[in-house]
Amino acid sequence: MKVGDKAYRTIWPEMFGAPVSIIDQRHLPHRFDIVTLETLKAAEIAIRDMWVRGAPLIGVTAVYGLYLGLLHKADDADLKAAHDTLLATRPTAVNLRWALARAFAHLHPLPPQDRALAAFDLAAVMADEDVEINQAIGTHGIAVIRALAAQKTPAEPVNILTHCNAGWLATVDWGTATSPIYQAHDAGISVHVWVDETRPRNQGASITAFELANHGVPHTVIVDNAGGHLMQHGQVDMVITGTDRTTSNGDVCNKIGTYLKALAAFDNDVPFYVALPSPTIDWSLSDGIADIPIEERAAIEVSHMQGLLADGRYGAVQITPQASAVANPAFDVTPARLITGGLITERGIAAASVSGLKALFPEADVTGSGWVRAR
Amino acid sequence: MKVGDKAYRTIWPEMFGAPVSIIDQRHLPHRFDIVTLETLKAAEIAIRDMWVRGAPLIGVTAVYGLYLGLLHKADDADLKAAHDTLLATRPTAVNLRWALARAFAHLHPLPPQDRALAAFDLAAVMADEDVEINQAIGTHGIAVIRALAAQKTPAEPVNILTHCNAGWLATVDWGTATSPIYQAHDAGISVHVWVDETRPRNQGASITAFELANHGVPHTVIVDNAGGHLMQHGQVDMVITGTDRTTSNGDVCNKIGTYLKALAAFDNDVPFYVALPSPTIDWSLSDGIADIPIEERAAIEVSHMQGLLADGRYGAVQITPQASAVANPAFDVTPARLITGGLITERGIAAASVSGLKALFPEADVTGSGWVRAR
Repeated sequence: MKVGDKAYRTIWPEMFGAPVSIIDQRHLPHRFDIVTLETLKAAEIAIRDMWVRGAPLIGVTAVYGLYLGLLHKADDADLKAAHDTLLATRPTAVNLRWALARAFAHLHPLPPQDRALAAFDLAAVMADEDVEINQAIGTHGIAVIRALAAQKTPAEPVNILTHCNAGWLATVDWGTATSPIYQAHDAGISVHVWVDETRPRNQGASITAFELANHGVPHTVIVDNAGGHLMQHGQVDMVITGTDRTTSNGDVCNKIGTYLKALAAFDNDVPFYVALPSPTIDWSLSDGIADIPIEERAAIEVSHMQGLLADGRYGAVQITPQASAVANPAFDVTPARLITGGLITERGIAAASVSGLKALFPEADVTGSGWVRAR
Repeated sequence: MKVGDKAYRTIWPEMFGAPVSIIDQRHLPHRFDIVTLETLKAAEIAIRDMWVRGAPLIGVTAVYGLYLGLLHKADDADLKAAHDTLLATRPTAVNLRWALARAFAHLHPLPPQDRALAAFDLAAVMADEDVEINQAIGTHGIAVIRALAAQKTPAEPVNILTHCNAGWLATVDWGTATSPIYQAHDAGISVHVWVDETRPRNQGASITAFELANHGVPHTVIVDNAGGHLMQHGQVDMVITGTDRTTSNGDVCNKIGTYLKALAAFDNDVPFYVALPSPTIDWSLSDGIADIPIEERAAIEVSHMQGLLADGRYGAVQITPQASAVANPAFDVTPARLITGGLITERGIAAASVSGLKALFPEADVTGSGWVRAR
């Protein structure tokens, strides 16, 4: 999507043998930086320290990380070590696991000297697949927005609340939750987005707001506490979020706080949707709350807040007392029963249930033996 | 309560004719400042700009503000003007309205030359009443904590989640929601408090955490998004919050985000309590969501975050893009049906309903003609 007047993807190669470029998202919305990843270590840091974030983008970045590692050392032990290093960067996102497993299965049978090029090509294929999936999610999701718009006067926007960033910067392009929004806006449907700031890392206030502002979509940033009040007063027509991991029964693991918005939507009869590229489905799990390990991140994300200082530099303020302990669970699980709108996938909108997902993905293996590539 | 080794109230006079001292809460937890209010204008600014905050403390501060104004100009028009100026500082808190109405009724019949001293004396009486009410709330609330502790081993703390600051710094002393916690801790019951940071102004991360740290109560600061996840995993035994305004049917208007925690508590069978000095009951209202006007505060509270800079100064960072709109509703309403534990008042614990409140406050006028002093 566009930043200023130029169209970007979030990650792109130059040529085989050369480094890979990414948008460094750490200082958005205040600074738009492009950096190059030259080594496996650089890719590891970029994923772990969230220079790139978002389940789909993490997966593609990891495969480019394999490519960078295999350029120099490509025997079986090197491939295994690179795979394991990248897998350890973020414990929750199933895309990462899926992407690395797919790459490993593809690369392992090849002679070591062919592996770097094969990884390079595979990463490009996976990037294009992600874009296609997200376009398809938008195509299905725009129908929901169009139906809500039909109940309003042309002057009234469809008010959509979203949490965290499931935008194009979390993917290779288009985004998942934002894809229907961008497509509706481009089609001339009046939309307005309530953007949850999404503490502790503020991906909503910083990244989602940056995206929407650059694409010209009307939006308002709110604190995470405000969404329930807006729903009580009829100011939200639908909620749409992304997901980092979805179980076979439709439970959704997403950024911490998603569950609270789903409760509020349920309490106020506001339809709740999750945009869901099928690689984020973990068919081996059937109880999100019991089965999904939740990443506990560093205390400093809570005790401090980063942003733009008055002098134009980028910095942080400390919020909590020195003497106070801090906890920082990064995700929560929204039970399927609260996802009243449905799961918007690249194949259509599924009810959040085993039968709903199986109807769209009949080839999926839900017996618990692992995950399948569902397209 | 104590700060360092010294016991404080949040507001205290020296002698008649002299200024009034307050704790300036704006830079907590990083700086503990005591300032004096010398004029009506100073009291107006202290309330409006939240040097002092919390429904009970605002009420007492307003009456001291009348005193400061009446020291210089005390005829009927001056009294009315001072009353109206102070009433306009914060639109939501019913305590402010109640305290000023009580003071006006007390002062208006007096000769102008007697009014300043009468206001000074009344403010002292009201400060003492607030302390008594809060002590009584603690006496009733500790029974709830004791019952939860009885279901645990001595090594397991009772985990209590609270939102915003309904602590002693929001009152004259003891606090409302914190009074049972302080009393339980002092009685040797093992408690641990989950402190919601409470964006946008971070009263939890800054003020509640500061209070608990100074009193030695074990606690952990979390972002507002985290409480639902903790409840899903059995890590919260009860929720207790304060309230700025409560309707006759038990709806509670409190800091934005309280409603979301009540939904999560309901969904996870965690009892939800509201600590409730009876002056915060607005007997004239019976539908909190429809009837209570919600204060919309400045955008800068959301777009920026204040705290301690790396160099030890106090400052702010900007979070949102320049181009993004911001909304900042300061309160929300938690419907009575979600207050499953009850309303902990100075007279005992009431069910959150007309009949529950009437049983404890039979003298109250719920016909809609206004509010009564319910003690």
